[in-house]
Amino acid sequence: MPDKINKTYDVAIIGSGPAGLSASIYASRYRLSNIVIGEMLGGSISDAHRVCNYPGFIDTPGIDLSQNFLKQAEHLGGEFSQELVTKILKKDNLFLLETESQNTYYSKTIILTLGSSRNKLGLPNEDFFLGKGVSYCATCDAMFFREKRVAVVGGSNAATMSASMLSDIASEVYIIYRGTELRGDQVWIEDVKEKSNIKIIYSTTVVSLEGGSKLERIKLSNRYNNSEYLEIDGLFIEIGSVPNADLAQQIGVKLDRENYIVVSEDQSTSLEGIWAAGDCTNSSNKFSQVVTAASEGAIAANSIFAFIKKKTV
Amino acid sequence: MPDKINKTYDVAIIGSGPAGLSASIYASRYRLSNIVIGEMLGGSISDAHRVCNYPGFIDTPGIDLSQNFLKQAEHLGGEFSQELVTKILKKDNLFLLETESQNTYYSKTIILTLGSSRNKLGLPNEDFFLGKGVSYCATCDAMFFREKRVAVVGGSNAATMSASMLSDIASEVYIIYRGTELRGDQVWIEDVKEKSNIKIIYSTTVVSLEGGSKLERIKLSNRYNNSEYLEIDGLFIEIGSVPNADLAQQIGVKLDRENYIVVSEDQSTSLEGIWAAGDCTNSSNKFSQVVTAASEGAIAANSIFAFIKKKTV
Repeated sequence: MPDKINKTYDVAIIGSGPAGLSASIYASRYRLSNIVIGEMLGGSISDAHRVCNYPGFIDTPGIDLSQNFLKQAEHLGGEFSQELVTKILKKDNLFLLETESQNTYYSKTIILTLGSSRNKLGLPNEDFFLGKGVSYCATCDAMFFREKRVAVVGGSNAATMSASMLSDIASEVYIIYRGTELRGDQVWIEDVKEKSNIKIIYSTTVVSLEGGSKLERIKLSNRYNNSEYLEIDGLFIEIGSVPNADLAQQIGVKLDRENYIVVSEDQSTSLEGIWAAGDCTNSSNKFSQVVTAASEGAIAANSIFAFIKKKTV
Repeated sequence: MPDKINKTYDVAIIGSGPAGLSASIYASRYRLSNIVIGEMLGGSISDAHRVCNYPGFIDTPGIDLSQNFLKQAEHLGGEFSQELVTKILKKDNLFLLETESQNTYYSKTIILTLGSSRNKLGLPNEDFFLGKGVSYCATCDAMFFREKRVAVVGGSNAATMSASMLSDIASEVYIIYRGTELRGDQVWIEDVKEKSNIKIIYSTTVVSLEGGSKLERIKLSNRYNNSEYLEIDGLFIEIGSVPNADLAQQIGVKLDRENYIVVSEDQSTSLEGIWAAGDCTNSSNKFSQVVTAASEGAIAANSIFAFIKKKTV
């Protein structure tokens, strides 16, 4: 890709989910040359079984929605590179981006759309059992547990949605939640309470993961049905997420106490030339949705257009 | 509609464009009973010839996009009433909404999604010639000017987009702009400059509208081609808009100097129980797009869910 590498872009967008792709769509409408660099083109929404709350689409698989975003960004002239940015440097008013695949990109401005990552339980053999019974994505892995017994850890939307979906596939679903009342959308709470094959175990955490080559059982912090063990084939961990702040931290962009990138109304960060949008920022009242991410990406591109125009006048 | 009128809604959404419909979609996901009350279900985006910048749709007629929003809101359980709210009263922790059609609605909370209105030139016979040559919506009326001579007043996106669209239908298109350089998306600026049947008249305003039963010519503030008159069949006025703030003003919600409703991060206004979203607010850096309006509506519904849950605990 020598053409991409010897070029100076108006905007380099780091991260390729809804925020980044919307930023590209809007940047292209302003005729700003732009490249989206990310490990997973389309972002993690691609993993969503169904998306029913992005306005304009009554009910669509996540992969279709993310492909629509991608096609639209491409159609309007956005460029793409599927790789991980590892370092950002500033050199004579230009940003220099280094990637894991040893490529270097030059750009006048940057939009950080780094997204967020799933929280882990932090148990010793959690990584060992990943793909051997442990999963962080019910929509991706549910099908492997047909007529099996599974548990979901967590009590918010992600957990209730996952449990609801799993209940149509697995024979039994347990929701293990440390709290005393499920959180998030009433729609999902009512749904899991109505399903006969879902049992909710409150005020309880998972203490250990046990099994041989595959997960066989989990140990609970409280006895359930007279046992401290629960025999299951699959464990879905749905306990929230943290912003991906490493790159932002490295370049010195201001973060809030929870490590979200602090942005102004125009999505600009504390450093000139760097904007941010989507789940990694503190904007949209920290409501992380495809539509809020897309909106922030659009606002960032709009602000950059004004910034670059001012610079060139 | 006696069922709608004797009911107390969790949320009454005043205004039925993208912000209001997105608010309804999200409110329904939270199982909040909600009604959208507006004169034009779908909002003014329905008039847009094509929408190419709403992420997820490469290129769609505005009417299709607004119908998708409507269908989705309806599918999830939102109710609708096509009428104009004329008064908001507060009575014992409930809001009481009166409409032009003499209906009254009760609601625990309100979201104002009032949109904005087109600016007029302010010329004496501007209203007389409306529909007789004068239009504020090129996408609605362009087809009436096939092979005719038209002018567009303005220099921003709305004006350049309209001129571009009109150039495919009309024989000649004049852009009359008081400024010296067109504003908005480069895409549209380049487009109008490249079209051979578009002429741009800078540093000029329209002084008067003249004709008999229909518009026949306009008088310009500066001579063009040795004449102070321009013979045209149609005049499209695209000079921006102002927020629809009447209802907000009436109930005493805080407005900024340009009459936009001042909202916090969670889209709440200065008055408890009243939220606002979309083009009538000062949020999203005042970038008025379908995606920013939809995002604000979603955030407002999310905030109201937390507000109502807190109240009922």
